[in-house]
Amino acid sequence: MPTLATRLTRALGLRHPIVSAPMAFAAGGALAAAVSRAGGLGLIGGGYGDPAWLDEQFRAAQGERVGVGFITWSLRKSPSLLTDVLKHRPAAVMLSFGDPRPFADEIRAAGAKLICQCQDMAHVMDAIEVGADVVVAQGSEAGGHGALRGTLSFVPEAADWLAVHAPDTLLLAAGGIADGRGLAAALVLGADGALVGTRLWASREALVAERHHGAILETDGDGTLRTTVPDIARQLAWPRGFTARVRRNAFTERWHGREAELERQVAVEGPKYRQAFAAGDPDNTAVWFGEAAGIIHTIEPAGAIVERMAEEAAQRLGRG
Amino acid sequence: MPTLATRLTRALGLRHPIVSAPMAFAAGGALAAAVSRAGGLGLIGGGYGDPAWLDEQFRAAQGERVGVGFITWSLRKSPSLLTDVLKHRPAAVMLSFGDPRPFADEIRAAGAKLICQCQDMAHVMDAIEVGADVVVAQGSEAGGHGALRGTLSFVPEAADWLAVHAPDTLLLAAGGIADGRGLAAALVLGADGALVGTRLWASREALVAERHHGAILETDGDGTLRTTVPDIARQLAWPRGFTARVRRNAFTERWHGREAELERQVAVEGPKYRQAFAAGDPDNTAVWFGEAAGIIHTIEPAGAIVERMAEEAAQRLGRG
Repeated sequence: MPTLATRLTRALGLRHPIVSAPMAFAAGGALAAAVSRAGGLGLIGGGYGDPAWLDEQFRAAQGERVGVGFITWSLRKSPSLLTDVLKHRPAAVMLSFGDPRPFADEIRAAGAKLICQCQDMAHVMDAIEVGADVVVAQGSEAGGHGALRGTLSFVPEAADWLAVHAPDTLLLAAGGIADGRGLAAALVLGADGALVGTRLWASREALVAERHHGAILETDGDGTLRTTVPDIARQLAWPRGFTARVRRNAFTERWHGREAELERQVAVEGPKYRQAFAAGDPDNTAVWFGEAAGIIHTIEPAGAIVERMAEEAAQRLGRG
Repeated sequence: MPTLATRLTRALGLRHPIVSAPMAFAAGGALAAAVSRAGGLGLIGGGYGDPAWLDEQFRAAQGERVGVGFITWSLRKSPSLLTDVLKHRPAAVMLSFGDPRPFADEIRAAGAKLICQCQDMAHVMDAIEVGADVVVAQGSEAGGHGALRGTLSFVPEAADWLAVHAPDTLLLAAGGIADGRGLAAALVLGADGALVGTRLWASREALVAERHHGAILETDGDGTLRTTVPDIARQLAWPRGFTARVRRNAFTERWHGREAELERQVAVEGPKYRQAFAAGDPDNTAVWFGEAAGIIHTIEPAGAIVERMAEEAAQRLGRG
């Protein structure tokens, strides 16, 4: 019996109520497998959908039981990607940022749990309409894409709504949770577990450039912002309402607030952004982490992070 | 011995680790006294500083041990207000939104605890420099004025910083805390207690128009936004970086995003805003509450709210 047994650990057969966020580019098979091996559930970041990369990451997971996540609006442009990925028999498929309806049946028919990541109460209602097994209430603190609700008020509101309208649906808290304190808070707020991004981005197994890892160690929680400039530079047509939380750096100082100008210059600035990202430059491209940067001071193996989070949360809750 | 004894309850002689936010206009002497009577510490909202109103509110507190809060940048315009208020022997003075330096010595010399409300880590460092007794880490979820950090990641980061640099300074969490779950989360995140605004705005003792109270009962947590339009309408020169979280309504739909136009029309729109506020109109003026609206379904006596929050938090933490 795990110390932090919840409905989530029972439903998914986990030792710890921790799921890793399917961070595009950063969450490969090695990270997902390490999280699952440590007793959580690891998710591979399907991102914008590169079939060869996804096959490679499932191979890297070496048969460990993992799941996968997609950016929903992007998946609609190449729905066959889902069909291909389901052949790897993922334990769960997480859909974020867009209408889950076109994919829900296929995911469930394949025997995978359907996790819907939500940024506001309207999304939670949509997720229940498609029969999500797990809802993620993601607050604005989160790194990468998200929206404006704060984790601390969003989670109990989602819990209350689910208790009335879908009592068997599980709830994960996401956004700003990077240690045992955050995990304990998620549980007392009414979640069944936590989805952890930034803290696992700062792990050895994450596919993150060394100087980007260096950047998070130097940054406190004031040093990030929500912005659209990385998406403009990459010419990614994100739906209105979603922004990316990234590090404040030379790139965001230059372009945040000058979005129209960046759009006009994208033929030049887009390639510069992509080259800087590929080169691991921490200044002239987006560096993808959230406000939890302020409590992250080490790059460690993912398994150690998961186990310490669970242990510290249990202590905080007097179940140590 | 109170069930939720913390460093805060011991230092301030409280039964519950709950302080009420000094909400401008809404937090009068009756609310502050009710919170103190129930075992927390009530703060009168000094707001923009009306000496006659403040005297009246201290009288309304009927000798109950209460404190007071000021908007720091506004207090600089009439510093004698602080001297006058200190004659009422407040238990604590809270300074929010601006440089606390000009006032810290006078507050401490009067025997009042100095509480500094902070919106980011830079503010926390300023608060320690002036020797604050209590630091409030206020997240963006909060109603009324605030900034961008999320409560759930800001609180543990502030706790870690204080543990190293000012271990005797107490920490309150603020923003989105409206029931026992939020209070329990504040404590496990490392705070010594919570500052509660919106939940006590929705109390019988708050100086809030009946139709504004009606509005919060109809609104979920998606139904607020951070904006500068109430301050533009009132011609209040708030420093850059601070915005007000208010209900999304006809007023914000009309002007949010059209700030320059509102400034040009303020001679007409300003009086309309103020008349609507005075008339208790919930549509054509700002209605001041935060994201916790989504878990607030009743207008109740403040004492009952404080006692239930403490009891529920104790239960969540297994100290019931």
